[in-house]
Amino acid sequence: QLWCHRFAGLRSYATPHSQFFAPSEGIMLPAGSYNNKVAFITGGGTGLGRAMTGVLSQLGAQCVIASRKLEVLQQTATEISSQTGNKVHAVQCDVRDPQAVSRCVDQMVELTGLPDVIINNAAGNFICPSERLSANGWKSITDIVLNGTAFVTLELGKRLIQNQKGASFLAITTIYAESGSGFVVPSASAKAGVEALYKSLAAEWGRYGHRFNIIQPGPIRTKGAFSRLDPTGTFEKSMIGRIPTGRLGKPAELANLAAYLSSDYASWMSGAVIRFDGGEYVSMAGEFNELRKVTDDQWKMLETMIRSTKGS
Amino acid sequence: QLWCHRFAGLRSYATPHSQFFAPSEGIMLPAGSYNNKVAFITGGGTGLGRAMTGVLSQLGAQCVIASRKLEVLQQTATEISSQTGNKVHAVQCDVRDPQAVSRCVDQMVELTGLPDVIINNAAGNFICPSERLSANGWKSITDIVLNGTAFVTLELGKRLIQNQKGASFLAITTIYAESGSGFVVPSASAKAGVEALYKSLAAEWGRYGHRFNIIQPGPIRTKGAFSRLDPTGTFEKSMIGRIPTGRLGKPAELANLAAYLSSDYASWMSGAVIRFDGGEYVSMAGEFNELRKVTDDQWKMLETMIRSTKGS
Amino acid sequence: QLWCHRFAGLRSYATPHSQFFAPSEGIMLPAGSYNNKVAFITGGGTGLGRAMTGVLSQLGAQCVIASRKLEVLQQTATEISSQTGNKVHAVQCDVRDPQAVSRCVDQMVELTGLPDVIINNAAGNFICPSERLSANGWKSITDIVLNGTAFVTLELGKRLIQNQKGASFLAITTIYAESGSGFVVPSASAKAGVEALYKSLAAEWGRYGHRFNIIQPGPIRTKGAFSRLDPTGTFEKSMIGRIPTGRLGKPAELANLAAYLSSDYASWMSGAVIRFDGGEYVSMAGEFNELRKVTDDQWKMLETMIRSTKGS
Amino acid sequence: QLWCHRFAGLRSYATPHSQFFAPSEGIMLPAGSYNNKVAFITGGGTGLGRAMTGVLSQLGAQCVIASRKLEVLQQTATEISSQTGNKVHAVQCDVRDPQAVSRCVDQMVELTGLPDVIINNAAGNFICPSERLSANGWKSITDIVLNGTAFVTLELGKRLIQNQKGASFLAITTIYAESGSGFVVPSASAKAGVEALYKSLAAEWGRYGHRFNIIQPGPIRTKGAFSRLDPTGTFEKSMIGRIPTGRLGKPAELANLAAYLSSDYASWMSGAVIRFDGGEYVSMAGEFNELRKVTDDQWKMLETMIRSTKGS
Ligand SMILES: NC(=O)c1ccc[n+]([C@@H]2O[C@H](COP(=O)([O-])OP(=O)(O)OC[C@H]3O[C@@H](n4cnc5c(N)ncnc54)[C@H](OP(=O)(O)O)[C@@H]3O)[C@@H](O)[C@H]2O)c1
Ligand SMILES: NC(=O)c1ccc[n+]([C@@H]2O[C@H](COP(=O)([O-])OP(=O)(O)OC[C@H]3O[C@@H](n4cnc5c(N)ncnc54)[C@H](OP(=O)(O)O)[C@@H]3O)[C@@H](O)[C@H]2O)c1
Ligand SMILES: NC(=O)c1ccc[n+]([C@@H]2O[C@H](COP(=O)([O-])OP(=O)(O)OC[C@H]3O[C@@H](n4cnc5c(N)ncnc54)[C@H](OP(=O)(O)O)[C@@H]3O)[C@@H](O)[C@H]2O)c1
Ligand SMILES: NC(=O)c1ccc[n+]([C@@H]2O[C@H](COP(=O)([O-])OP(=O)(O)OC[C@H]3O[C@@H](n4cnc5c(N)ncnc54)[C@H](OP(=O)(O)O)[C@@H]3O)[C@@H](O)[C@H]2O)c1
Repeated sequence: QLWCHRFAGLRSYATPHSQFFAPSEGIMLPAGSYNNKVAFITGGGTGLGRAMTGVLSQLGAQCVIASRKLEVLQQTATEISSQTGNKVHAVQCDVRDPQAVSRCVDQMVELTGLPDVIINNAAGNFICPSERLSANGWKSITDIVLNGTAFVTLELGKRLIQNQKGASFLAITTIYAESGSGFVVPSASAKAGVEALYKSLAAEWGRYGHRFNIIQPGPIRTKGAFSRLDPTGTFEKSMIGRIPTGRLGKPAELANLAAYLSSDYASWMSGAVIRFDGGEYVSMAGEFNELRKVTDDQWKMLETMIRSTKGS
Repeated sequence: QLWCHRFAGLRSYATPHSQFFAPSEGIMLPAGSYNNKVAFITGGGTGLGRAMTGVLSQLGAQCVIASRKLEVLQQTATEISSQTGNKVHAVQCDVRDPQAVSRCVDQMVELTGLPDVIINNAAGNFICPSERLSANGWKSITDIVLNGTAFVTLELGKRLIQNQKGASFLAITTIYAESGSGFVVPSASAKAGVEALYKSLAAEWGRYGHRFNIIQPGPIRTKGAFSRLDPTGTFEKSMIGRIPTGRLGKPAELANLAAYLSSDYASWMSGAVIRFDGGEYVSMAGEFNELRKVTDDQWKMLETMIRSTKGS
Repeated sequence: QLWCHRFAGLRSYATPHSQFFAPSEGIMLPAGSYNNKVAFITGGGTGLGRAMTGVLSQLGAQCVIASRKLEVLQQTATEISSQTGNKVHAVQCDVRDPQAVSRCVDQMVELTGLPDVIINNAAGNFICPSERLSANGWKSITDIVLNGTAFVTLELGKRLIQNQKGASFLAITTIYAESGSGFVVPSASAKAGVEALYKSLAAEWGRYGHRFNIIQPGPIRTKGAFSRLDPTGTFEKSMIGRIPTGRLGKPAELANLAAYLSSDYASWMSGAVIRFDGGEYVSMAGEFNELRKVTDDQWKMLETMIRSTKGS
Repeated sequence: QLWCHRFAGLRSYATPHSQFFAPSEGIMLPAGSYNNKVAFITGGGTGLGRAMTGVLSQLGAQCVIASRKLEVLQQTATEISSQTGNKVHAVQCDVRDPQAVSRCVDQMVELTGLPDVIINNAAGNFICPSERLSANGWKSITDIVLNGTAFVTLELGKRLIQNQKGASFLAITTIYAESGSGFVVPSASAKAGVEALYKSLAAEWGRYGHRFNIIQPGPIRTKGAFSRLDPTGTFEKSMIGRIPTGRLGKPAELANLAAYLSSDYASWMSGAVIRFDGGEYVSMAGEFNELRKVTDDQWKMLETMIRSTKGS
């Protein structure tokens, strides 16, 4: 498949520079940091949600994971729980349906009480030229990502406020929420909406003890994301070529960041939007970054030409 | 130390400084700039949409205005048309309904052919503490603002692409789309989504001859906006107090900007987000701007105290 | 599934899509818009500064242009003045030197009185890998761009305040001021500083009758910029390839925008940052925009693969 | 822990809801996380720099702290070192002088070798109406903040590249770097420049094994910052009133964040800009956040008025 041109590749160095950026996948926070805490993670059965659930559970949290596929959730719950020794509850919930969200919270209240930590991670996405996108295609994504996040956040927020209980809310968005991006337009729009939702509530609901933060991940290989965004695997190469740290992210790295942001160590952090992308965004966005392809010899020539410029 | 020397300037409090920023409400673009052009404006029957329609019509465009209230549209159409001598067509359309949008475009095609200029201006909004917001309340706004804009844009985009016709798209959002804001959370989220939609399509659909730009207005008095956002009128005073230009904006000023952006004079502008707010946003956002309240005498005292600081 | 239906549209490749975005280089504002106004333009002798001076002069302004090379300024002044019939004054000034700036303003006061319009357009730049950059290289750019703009702005601001005279300030920055960019690092840093300066003063000095706005141009061919940023001309092709409007900008287009922003039609605009780049920035920054290279046939294959994805 | 001075005259304006956001001032990272690492911290003798040095030292790093006042540095070095058991070196350096920076790095190379972690924290600032600001006042801040950071970063970057050694760079800026702010204009401009510098190098120098990140702190009481920005203490109260978490930040909280970002746990994070401000920024920037002052009874009345609105 040739649809995705190879990047000109990295310059040849003695060692690929990603060696400088080896991932640390061990758990960062002190053991027990989440003892006596309850965490609610949407989409916690797979991918990044699963990784975050694993870390919070390991740190002592009781976790509730919710999404559409109960079997997937239950298997994840059993696996994590057996590793960490802490309970993980699986609750079926389609976040697009406010009634379902309400029932899910009812169930959680029975199981664990209201949560201390909420992670809005559930999402849908696929690549598609926008002129091929129907109104249904648009809604299939925005209903999950934007409305789903809003329904979960409003439902939990109201109950927490009624119970005078503080909480940390975290949303997982994407680096193209701010810039927009063609070919994933419903996702870009919905994720941008989620960011505004969280920044708005960070300002409004601090008085009720709630914090709201956002992680914008760059590419981290998960089956869910990559099968719908890069089915042939060719896009990945070109992404790695422009990521300054020279590699994709790891779910465990994101999970450590999420665990930090949701913990009391970050109790003064609210309204923050944290790009976590190996530098991909700044690398793409900067107009002259393409000059990394220029070789040393070419630079010498360019310098001579520039110096000889007269006048303006 | 000379870094902060005595300054003999005069404070502007004696005369209201808005005198320096008197609005120019005449039409800016050359007459005939929109001759032989068709413009489609959602929410064109009232407020800012009406003002933009008036200017485009005056400049020679044939306008199609669309919203739910046909009578309001018709009255506006008649009034503008009788003033400008150019046709203004009223088409009923609830932008939340993709079928209705499609029928509306069918009607427009019959009346005028596909448009050269599209302005997504229709919106809904109200102030409300988020803990009082139901799922329906959320959707009542986001369905209009985000889904409505998407349906209109996708429907028109596809037809224009099929007909190999270029066009300028403009969305009217708000200054709190970027920052978020409490108490208008569905609007903030939906408008942020609209911005991502337009930035995304600016990148994706340039190849089809389409431009996409955004105006973020600050407070401009219209019946629609102010009756739902400041029903008692008390908020207005405090807004004016923090707007550096010392006054609200005028619909005619916004209309001139919109006419420029939608015209061929701006044919190289795409993906731009233009704040048009009298400076309100930067004034609110800057951490130390509150110091404008400090008097000259107080500054003298403060300087003395700062200079006497020793060490760090 | 209907979300990404077959679309019968035509690709734009047959005809270069820049045909849809033909530049309008005539003057946009009404004749006489700048009658009885004085405009001060740094770097007004060449490139974009010259184009802006030409338009303001044509619209009735008396212009003062200032930079280091008096001869260049004088020739430009003579040429523009002879075309427009309005006076253009050439004043030598190295903006890095606050004393020189002060003397230049003294001279202007004699010639024309204090200005109504100030355009900070002077700048320096060159491409260079940052590991080759000396402290002097750093300062050679930042002293002009950041300090120079500050000295001009503070000097004129103070005098205008003392004279209770309002004014419009405009700064010309660049699209990579916000994102940063490798290989032009001093320029990126200094231009970002200029933007903060202007947003800060928009908030602070509104009370004195001053507005502050910013244009971030994308690539517009001028001898000054292109000889130092793309001496071989190879970079230009790749820029055009990613600009959604398919072409570089024209000095006359920028001049029309600048004339609008500095005019009374924009008297409510302050603190705005206007990207003017043919869509280049959003095109570069969006993570999936590279998929524009995918052909129709490849999309068909991709859709099949995505649809067959099971689970997450 | 004593590495962070208690500040005399502690007032507490903390709001009742700040109970939900009690600070966690213990060290977050696993013991030994910085074993065998060298950290270089400018301004490490006081305030936030001292706090970060304390945490890194506690975690095993050998630290080099540099600023103008050698005595202050030496006392801090001795105190921290005696607590943590790890060496802290004091090196005199005025970052405004590239030669001094080079000599300082020479000294560091002798003492510890090149660093793994660089924190650009040194800064100057004071409040001042911009019309009272001289060119010298402007330079007194920008020379430290922007040029100083550039000189340190370029000098260390070059040496690290020559030695093929990777490193993490962190800059401490401020929340008003993005928005700008009146009354602290040189600081706003210079900090914005620092952010562009770091985003640019994140893109450019990844290939050499370097990461670049930014923390934008909100108000954290230190003697250095508060004596020059709020000498009377009256501003503090109003800041706390608008901070959603209802309190100022603590140096130890910032130090934990900085330790995370500079550690291998964040080896995939580059080009990130992390606001750390208790939510102050989003709270200030959102246009309708002032409505938090509206009481429950007033909301009831407002709702009735809004509902009775007819038409638009
Ligand atoms: N991986 C990346 O590179 C990357 C990059 C940027 C952002 N992200 C974001 O990271 C998050 C996790 O993505 P991932 O990569 O881990 O992919 P994933 O495994 O596909 O995760 C998506 C999750 O969302 C759940 N979900 C989907 N629709 C739902 C609905 N209607 N109701 C409830 N749950 C629903 C799915 O579970 P069910 O199918 O059981 O409902 C699934 O567990 C997403 O927000 C994604 O946008 C990922
Ligand atoms: N005025 C301001 O200060 C301000 C500030 C920031 C942003 N804005 C934005 O400016 C735009 C215009 O606002 P405005 O102040 O002129 O208020 P407005 O007069 O209330 O305009 C809103 C328009 O949207 C139409 N609309 C609402 N729901 C619709 C639907 N479902 N389908 C089709 N049309 C619909 C309304 O017509 P029908 O009722 O007939 O449907 C109305 O004409 C809005 O996007 C607003 O968010 C205004
Ligand atoms: N062209 C583009 O594609 C592009 C893109 C983005 C931004 N810009 C910006 O647009 C502006 C104009 O650039 P341009 O393309 O027109 O290039 P240009 O012709 O080289 O303009 C630069 C001007 O700055 C003046 N200048 C340089 N150093 C000065 C100093 N120390 N004191 C006073 N004046 C000084 C020069 O005049 P003297 O040599 O006589 O001093 C010259 O007239 C710049 O701010 C540039 O950064 C341009
Ligand atoms: N505290 C806050 O609320 C806050 C908020 C936002 C941002 N910040 C940022 O946090 C950082 C630390 O501030 P702080 O509150 O800890 O204040 P601080 O104690 O005053 O720290 C400033 C440090 O910079 C050093 N410094 C100043 N000029 C220097 C020069 N020319 N060369 C080398 N070092 C120099 C000072 O040491 P010498 O005097 O010995 O040179 C001092 O140690 C600064 O970047 C500040 O802008 C602080």
